[in-house]
Amino acid sequence: MTGRHHLFIPGPSALPDDVMRAMDRPTIDHRGPAFQALAHDVQDGLRWIFGCAGPVVTYPASGSGAWEAALVNTLSPGDQVLMYESGQFASLWAEIAGRLSLKAEILPGDWRRGAEAQRIEDRLRADPGHRIRAVCVVHNETSTGCTADIPAIRAALDAAGHPALLMVDTISSLGSIPYRADDWGVDVTVGGSQKGLMLPPGISFNALGPKALEAAKTATLPRSYWAWEPVIRLNADGFFPYTPATNTLFGLRAALAMMRAEGLEAIFARHRRLARATRAAATAWGLELQCAVPSEYSAALTALRVPEGASADRLRQVALASFDLSLGNGLGKLADRVFRIGHLGHLNDLSLISALAGVEMSLGLADIAHQRGGVAAAMGVMAEAQRQGEPA
Amino acid sequence: MTGRHHLFIPGPSALPDDVMRAMDRPTIDHRGPAFQALAHDVQDGLRWIFGCAGPVVTYPASGSGAWEAALVNTLSPGDQVLMYESGQFASLWAEIAGRLSLKAEILPGDWRRGAEAQRIEDRLRADPGHRIRAVCVVHNETSTGCTADIPAIRAALDAAGHPALLMVDTISSLGSIPYRADDWGVDVTVGGSQKGLMLPPGISFNALGPKALEAAKTATLPRSYWAWEPVIRLNADGFFPYTPATNTLFGLRAALAMMRAEGLEAIFARHRRLARATRAAATAWGLELQCAVPSEYSAALTALRVPEGASADRLRQVALASFDLSLGNGLGKLADRVFRIGHLGHLNDLSLISALAGVEMSLGLADIAHQRGGVAAAMGVMAEAQRQGEPA
Amino acid sequence: MTGRHHLFIPGPSALPDDVMRAMDRPTIDHRGPAFQALAHDVQDGLRWIFGCAGPVVTYPASGSGAWEAALVNTLSPGDQVLMYESGQFASLWAEIAGRLSLKAEILPGDWRRGAEAQRIEDRLRADPGHRIRAVCVVHNETSTGCTADIPAIRAALDAAGHPALLMVDTISSLGSIPYRADDWGVDVTVGGSQKGLMLPPGISFNALGPKALEAAKTATLPRSYWAWEPVIRLNADGFFPYTPATNTLFGLRAALAMMRAEGLEAIFARHRRLARATRAAATAWGLELQCAVPSEYSAALTALRVPEGASADRLRQVALASFDLSLGNGLGKLADRVFRIGHLGHLNDLSLISALAGVEMSLGLADIAHQRGGVAAAMGVMAEAQRQGEPA
Amino acid sequence: MTGRHHLFIPGPSALPDDVMRAMDRPTIDHRGPAFQALAHDVQDGLRWIFGCAGPVVTYPASGSGAWEAALVNTLSPGDQVLMYESGQFASLWAEIAGRLSLKAEILPGDWRRGAEAQRIEDRLRADPGHRIRAVCVVHNETSTGCTADIPAIRAALDAAGHPALLMVDTISSLGSIPYRADDWGVDVTVGGSQKGLMLPPGISFNALGPKALEAAKTATLPRSYWAWEPVIRLNADGFFPYTPATNTLFGLRAALAMMRAEGLEAIFARHRRLARATRAAATAWGLELQCAVPSEYSAALTALRVPEGASADRLRQVALASFDLSLGNGLGKLADRVFRIGHLGHLNDLSLISALAGVEMSLGLADIAHQRGGVAAAMGVMAEAQRQGEPA
Repeated sequence: MTGRHHLFIPGPSALPDDVMRAMDRPTIDHRGPAFQALAHDVQDGLRWIFGCAGPVVTYPASGSGAWEAALVNTLSPGDQVLMYESGQFASLWAEIAGRLSLKAEILPGDWRRGAEAQRIEDRLRADPGHRIRAVCVVHNETSTGCTADIPAIRAALDAAGHPALLMVDTISSLGSIPYRADDWGVDVTVGGSQKGLMLPPGISFNALGPKALEAAKTATLPRSYWAWEPVIRLNADGFFPYTPATNTLFGLRAALAMMRAEGLEAIFARHRRLARATRAAATAWGLELQCAVPSEYSAALTALRVPEGASADRLRQVALASFDLSLGNGLGKLADRVFRIGHLGHLNDLSLISALAGVEMSLGLADIAHQRGGVAAAMGVMAEAQRQGEPA
Repeated sequence: MTGRHHLFIPGPSALPDDVMRAMDRPTIDHRGPAFQALAHDVQDGLRWIFGCAGPVVTYPASGSGAWEAALVNTLSPGDQVLMYESGQFASLWAEIAGRLSLKAEILPGDWRRGAEAQRIEDRLRADPGHRIRAVCVVHNETSTGCTADIPAIRAALDAAGHPALLMVDTISSLGSIPYRADDWGVDVTVGGSQKGLMLPPGISFNALGPKALEAAKTATLPRSYWAWEPVIRLNADGFFPYTPATNTLFGLRAALAMMRAEGLEAIFARHRRLARATRAAATAWGLELQCAVPSEYSAALTALRVPEGASADRLRQVALASFDLSLGNGLGKLADRVFRIGHLGHLNDLSLISALAGVEMSLGLADIAHQRGGVAAAMGVMAEAQRQGEPA
Repeated sequence: MTGRHHLFIPGPSALPDDVMRAMDRPTIDHRGPAFQALAHDVQDGLRWIFGCAGPVVTYPASGSGAWEAALVNTLSPGDQVLMYESGQFASLWAEIAGRLSLKAEILPGDWRRGAEAQRIEDRLRADPGHRIRAVCVVHNETSTGCTADIPAIRAALDAAGHPALLMVDTISSLGSIPYRADDWGVDVTVGGSQKGLMLPPGISFNALGPKALEAAKTATLPRSYWAWEPVIRLNADGFFPYTPATNTLFGLRAALAMMRAEGLEAIFARHRRLARATRAAATAWGLELQCAVPSEYSAALTALRVPEGASADRLRQVALASFDLSLGNGLGKLADRVFRIGHLGHLNDLSLISALAGVEMSLGLADIAHQRGGVAAAMGVMAEAQRQGEPA
Repeated sequence: MTGRHHLFIPGPSALPDDVMRAMDRPTIDHRGPAFQALAHDVQDGLRWIFGCAGPVVTYPASGSGAWEAALVNTLSPGDQVLMYESGQFASLWAEIAGRLSLKAEILPGDWRRGAEAQRIEDRLRADPGHRIRAVCVVHNETSTGCTADIPAIRAALDAAGHPALLMVDTISSLGSIPYRADDWGVDVTVGGSQKGLMLPPGISFNALGPKALEAAKTATLPRSYWAWEPVIRLNADGFFPYTPATNTLFGLRAALAMMRAEGLEAIFARHRRLARATRAAATAWGLELQCAVPSEYSAALTALRVPEGASADRLRQVALASFDLSLGNGLGKLADRVFRIGHLGHLNDLSLISALAGVEMSLGLADIAHQRGGVAAAMGVMAEAQRQGEPA
């Protein structure tokens, strides 16, 4: 097909030219001084993005590797972890815990809202012996478009007086939705490259608080590739214990420079506006949002439910075949029931309109019941933001 | 600004990744065998695109260089040329003729339609002594969005029994709108890189018929850089008489491969659809088209008039500042009265919707009288095309 | 510094323009049809490169991840593995085994030759109870420049009638030195991207034989990210159980196309010639090779010993500071005693001469005792190869 | 062939990654504010490189276009120009003058030295009526590797009290060899992109002094594309009278930034060292330099004569076929008698060694009488420079 492909899955997101060109460079010696400078640069930037003063461990791995790393560095075989099932990704994290010989207790959810602080507090209060060693929550559920209130969850642990570690997956929120690891008292934050950081997939992160570092000293799950200690030790000098994904780090340096130039507040405001416009379109179409709690709407993606009897996957096929538009599919129990629009990363108003127009036309072509006017509604939101002086 | 810039001027047009990456290569020896193979490849492709069996001379120059080349290779000081003033670019070509000591007779036009065959025929019939040596017309007037019927103009020359050369500027039509130099009896066709050929600006073309080659033998205007003869002679072996713009030729090879893969008929149909959608938007907005003759609507760009009292340039500033959207300005006597939407080259439905949405919102923000619904109307055209099975 | 950096570490190796430009593309939906086609393409190519009919599991991970994967998929806690200590990388693999709760028995080596089949056979004969579950050897020791004779080691296992799995690390040999997983009866082959495959670091491989797949069914080491089974299952449809490193796979497709065009035999012959030229230089300089067994000289890299009292690291610093040349450092117990010249991947005669000239001049500048004439000797090898009609 | 191609023609020269990546960007609106900023940036940089306070006119054209531009803007039909025939490029410039209806008087040269100030002075003294309107010399003859002493030539005009314009071609010297248009009293300087400026071919320059601007007011040669006036007028606002080669200007901005970072003095010293090393090789090989005057040796390229009976083109074919090395051919009357090594632009010591090694081996393979040791001699020069503390 001619012209640009329209990639609107909730990550991997669009790569900026600056990032692609930065990666399009000869690899350098990962044991030389130029690499050291690169490593120090990206470490500084990562601490800034995660909002943490401690180390950020970077893995040549996808996000699921960083999930695994968070667990194996801090826990011991048979340890109990509390996983809040906010959606598919929370479920996958729980599965991983199980495979690693942890006892993953799942707090079941309905996939229509984020992890609830009160339920976590209740559960922890019912664990006076502190057998639960870690609480794992997903900040932004990529399968549902619901966010969790992390400060509230932190407060829940504190209110319960429970010493469990708090681990948070920010894979699809980092760089798109405000997040402050230290301020919010998160012990391990899991992050990935291919969403708000505007990079290709291939590297992922663990941002560490002091309590997590302490836990790592006694945790006995076997670990080698994922072990924090050698990474932290060598990172101090700008090196890694293995060959790092140098070219992706070139891209990361470029992405961080772009983010500093735009400013985190402006980035977050832009994401909120794009999300608002998307929801306006959904409302106009008469499609229900998967996320049922307005205060938890994600600024990074929106999952839309198709009417009973309609097929979300058919819609996606039409969008791809007719308009070269990639939409996110429904995952797990939401398969074929929802489609997801990613509106995160290197994106602006007019590009989002492309996606919404593609959805609106595809709804018609796929004969899915809806009202027109979604694009017009989104344009209304955008024009109003301009009138209010919001930066584009 | 974050996200992609939205470039919708009527050229330079969007560069495909394939083209940019092809140019992103070390330059090669322009006197070596790899270059020869490149030169032969692009010459074959250019003949295909121009629809000519004779040579296509490629200049490292912008399109105005190729205008000049067409004149200096075929004419002698004081020669009379008939230039049809279809708009700004026709006027510029006439100015060039004047600077080169030709007598440029202008057939005045109202800038709302393309060159008219009947008026040309009438003028030629009034030249029984055949003092007019060349008739110059613009196939697609980039300043107005009007096309000319070249076969009809050819027929006009023939009907008048006039031996003048026929020269046609296809800078903004080539690769977007059907064109057949030989079939249509055009003696010199002027082309450029940065429109339908999906390349950056920097090279331009003269496609030559036998009568033009014959004229070059006796033409006495001084010429060196623009001289066809040494280029044709060295091109036969895959070389050039000067250092060619090698990297742009890398891009041209890639662009031609893309065009062969899509097929000319599909390319032209795509442009017609995008133009139709744009006009549907204009109609919905209540904005008048600069081109007053429906059969002459350009498939490559559309020029829209703003209401009396409104400023087209103000609209363009708002679009750029608010939505990072570049629209074409009104040129010459149309300054501030029209804005132009380029819908040519590497472009598809959803990307065009971006531009139309940006225009619709900017009309509102700039307080220019209009009705909403332009984007919706364009979507209607696109969805209908899908229903009719038109390839996207 | 101006001009190209001269990267001659034994991997990461030089990236071809074709590979870098192929990666310099927008990421695509890893759940869509374009990705499926990509995945099938690279899987076919990987089977070809590894010489295996079974699955090749691709990890977004550095090579040390693939080491870990080979172990955790096939072994159970407390299992005994025999690791032949041919050098630093064999030692690191053994360390990993230890961290994963395996009993790693090390067959000590002197780091001057590759793994010896006879010693392996002897050890296996002394294990009538077959407590050793796997034999791990490095095909090409990147720290020493010695290769191991894998068919002979296979024969050793067979001669001993021992059922242990045979696992081979080909990280720095794959695509540079002949390797045939199936023909040689290797159960798990570990590979990486950043050497002979001419890619940046970031993905790594396990190529699997039937016996390894069988072992995976009963192996009980905990595994999640590294688990073969879900990868193999989803790969069948062109997908992955996690977000793959899509852009690196773009590069892999391009690299495989280049390798098919050159042909494996030509690639191997080129590496042998470059190695021969490097050794000729070493001999002329009067520097001793770390590899003491001529039949085991690596075609991918050469490790050279500096005279007693001299510092290899000082030499490397001079080469970097004076000539922008990166050489490989001595690792582990060879620190400061050897430097390593990588001559693998996307490399030709004249580029290697650059490196050798940089070494020869730096030996002088660093006041390390040597004879001149190394570059001349290497040129002698290259010119002679040309005379013999060897393809460049 | 595998590995990098070795491009050592005297331009186009190697493109830095920074430059290629800078050009690998979407084209922008040449009538918008981002373009204005670009235009102002590159104009500042060009004035710095040319050493002139007046305008530098940039053409989308090869260097021969800029030659033509220098003439047509300042002269009138029949005007006499004095062209010093220092080699092929001086001859071509004279040919161009002839084609443009100028009377080109050639001061014949032997192609073994640069333009001689004394001979120019003598000729001008013999022109008391000042019929000679311009003196044209080539600063660095790309066909011979000889430079001319421009300040001495300026002094020659002054000594003769002759008002002719002084025009200098710096196509292959600019950015490689010191040049100061204003300090040296040059009226029109002709420059190109594809040599010391490290860009692909496609743009070229006229740097103008006040006397040239004055001459342009009365010069009557027809001109349109080449006319300075509209370019200067629109450049003041950051625009051009035609579509500029935007992407090449992106590259120019990047190249200028690199040059500012390295510093002109360091750039010139590097070129001198590379030239010295090349001549040391030539001397060791026993090959005669085409340039017979040591004070005029070019720092940008070296032309070497092959012995009588030997074929330079055969040598070049062997170098290309055996080692993927492109050398410059002998031009005009030097065809097959010399080959040329370009050592200009983005180049460092070790890369030059590649070329010299390729030449040395090819001399042997082509059975051309020579002594070995050229590479060794060049290394001697480079190592000595390091010992003297010269920056690499």
